[in-house]
Amino acid sequence: MRVLIALGGNAMTGPGGSATPEEQDQAIAVAMEHVADLVASGVDVALTHGNGPQVGNLLVKNELSAHVVPPVPLDWCGAQTQGTIGFLILDSLDRALAARGVSRPVATVVTRTLVDKDDPGFTKPTKPIGRYLPEADARALSQHGQTWEDRGEQGWRRVVASPQPLEILDAGAIEVLAAAGYIVVGSGGGGIPVVRHDDGSLHGVEAVIDKDLAAAILAPAIGADVLVIATDVENAIAGYGTAEAAPIGRVTPAELRRLQKDGHFASGSMGPKVEAALRFVEGGGARSAITSLQRITDAVHGRAGTVIENP
Amino acid sequence: MRVLIALGGNAMTGPGGSATPEEQDQAIAVAMEHVADLVASGVDVALTHGNGPQVGNLLVKNELSAHVVPPVPLDWCGAQTQGTIGFLILDSLDRALAARGVSRPVATVVTRTLVDKDDPGFTKPTKPIGRYLPEADARALSQHGQTWEDRGEQGWRRVVASPQPLEILDAGAIEVLAAAGYIVVGSGGGGIPVVRHDDGSLHGVEAVIDKDLAAAILAPAIGADVLVIATDVENAIAGYGTAEAAPIGRVTPAELRRLQKDGHFASGSMGPKVEAALRFVEGGGARSAITSLQRITDAVHGRAGTVIENP
Repeated sequence: MRVLIALGGNAMTGPGGSATPEEQDQAIAVAMEHVADLVASGVDVALTHGNGPQVGNLLVKNELSAHVVPPVPLDWCGAQTQGTIGFLILDSLDRALAARGVSRPVATVVTRTLVDKDDPGFTKPTKPIGRYLPEADARALSQHGQTWEDRGEQGWRRVVASPQPLEILDAGAIEVLAAAGYIVVGSGGGGIPVVRHDDGSLHGVEAVIDKDLAAAILAPAIGADVLVIATDVENAIAGYGTAEAAPIGRVTPAELRRLQKDGHFASGSMGPKVEAALRFVEGGGARSAITSLQRITDAVHGRAGTVIENP
Repeated sequence: MRVLIALGGNAMTGPGGSATPEEQDQAIAVAMEHVADLVASGVDVALTHGNGPQVGNLLVKNELSAHVVPPVPLDWCGAQTQGTIGFLILDSLDRALAARGVSRPVATVVTRTLVDKDDPGFTKPTKPIGRYLPEADARALSQHGQTWEDRGEQGWRRVVASPQPLEILDAGAIEVLAAAGYIVVGSGGGGIPVVRHDDGSLHGVEAVIDKDLAAAILAPAIGADVLVIATDVENAIAGYGTAEAAPIGRVTPAELRRLQKDGHFASGSMGPKVEAALRFVEGGGARSAITSLQRITDAVHGRAGTVIENP
């Protein structure tokens, strides 16, 4: 059985999303203990991961050093985090596997994700990123082609396109390595967003891609049977925040779609995870799961978390 | 025939080492035209590259934003440049290959390079990196474990370890992809430096690795027959800067070692390239070459550049 695990940003940072290098390294080390447990259970694993807090840091660096060093575009920031998170995962996973007596090679593939240059996100960006700034600063940055929105008391915030991922362009390399026995890290941060120009050429583009939606297309591309979305709760919750709140266990795609339509999942948090889990199973995947990092092995075997399967 | 091309930092930046995102992208696009010509000539190619100017930019960002965002260590900076340069190469190379009607997949592998934790560079760092600062700033940073040196009129500069590369830890993944037909980019910036602790575990370490010396060990690890070090001159020069200056063409390792011993190659520029080219052939490689980006195809076939071969 091949399983793709999508690790949330919370698995990569310290408490409260704090992201010093030491905190990131420690959080990744903890996450890899759980991943190594899953590998040791005899499952073939591939990994993808978020990068929100890390990109947030890079944007601040861009901003504060722009008078000396040319800022780099958002696609470059994503690429940067694939390198850092990627190599930290390799070191930690090597360690965690060795501690379990498991001998498996690991690799990280720099991964581009194709998006549509005509995606509505590019004309109407909606995804907030980076830190809040005072109106004057935000207006100055708006002169340079960025879109900033008034978010009330906290200040202004940049919004960018979050286009639909269409194709994981480097999935082939991930698949080749997985077939050769590697545990592969790929499509970090949802992949580096690129668009195809009319002449067929590929070019990076300023956008962020939802890493779970990207995982939902990476999983079938690399022949994964199961997609596990690891987050900070053990189950998706129906009626979250109401008196009827109840964890969702085993569920069919049709039942989960109904709950989704009825507005049970917040658009900024559980919403994309539910959507990604649904897309994978509706597209022919055997099973997807949403659960906590601690329960990924149980979830893969259908014993924990919100497990989406056809009846 | 498999060839590893090591691209110098000059192939990745604009005139004078300037490194805006646009300049970097354009420089890489030009470099990939030459690489695509080589691929189209029927040779199996792998790529590695430098990252000096790019890491320089990241260090300035670290410094200017340290009051808001935690600085990241030097190994992270190297990892960041593997992501950015790596994906830019993929996009440009895809384009250049398509323009020649060549259908070959491309991939970038995040690559760690093992160095000795007892390398003398760690106790006595000598490699200058980043920008010059006034003495007061340099002394303040020295309080945080960095080594800074008085460089006279220009100010103070940070020096770091540049340890010998011992093993390209992720060469196996590069080899698997190359064997599957991929043109692979790996070991960018000489690889992310990692040390092995006494318990066997791997950890990133603050250092820079000479990308040509790393290429000299990557080449045999991936079964390359030829190592080409692409730089900004067509040949290494004997007697550089003297009345007897003469370009070196075809040369045996023994002859080149003699010129090296006689002090013909500057330690900071041509020296490591000559050393890397020598190590590859002395270690059993069929041929290495030092030449300009424009002449790489001719050099691979022994028709241009400084070509090192056993007699």
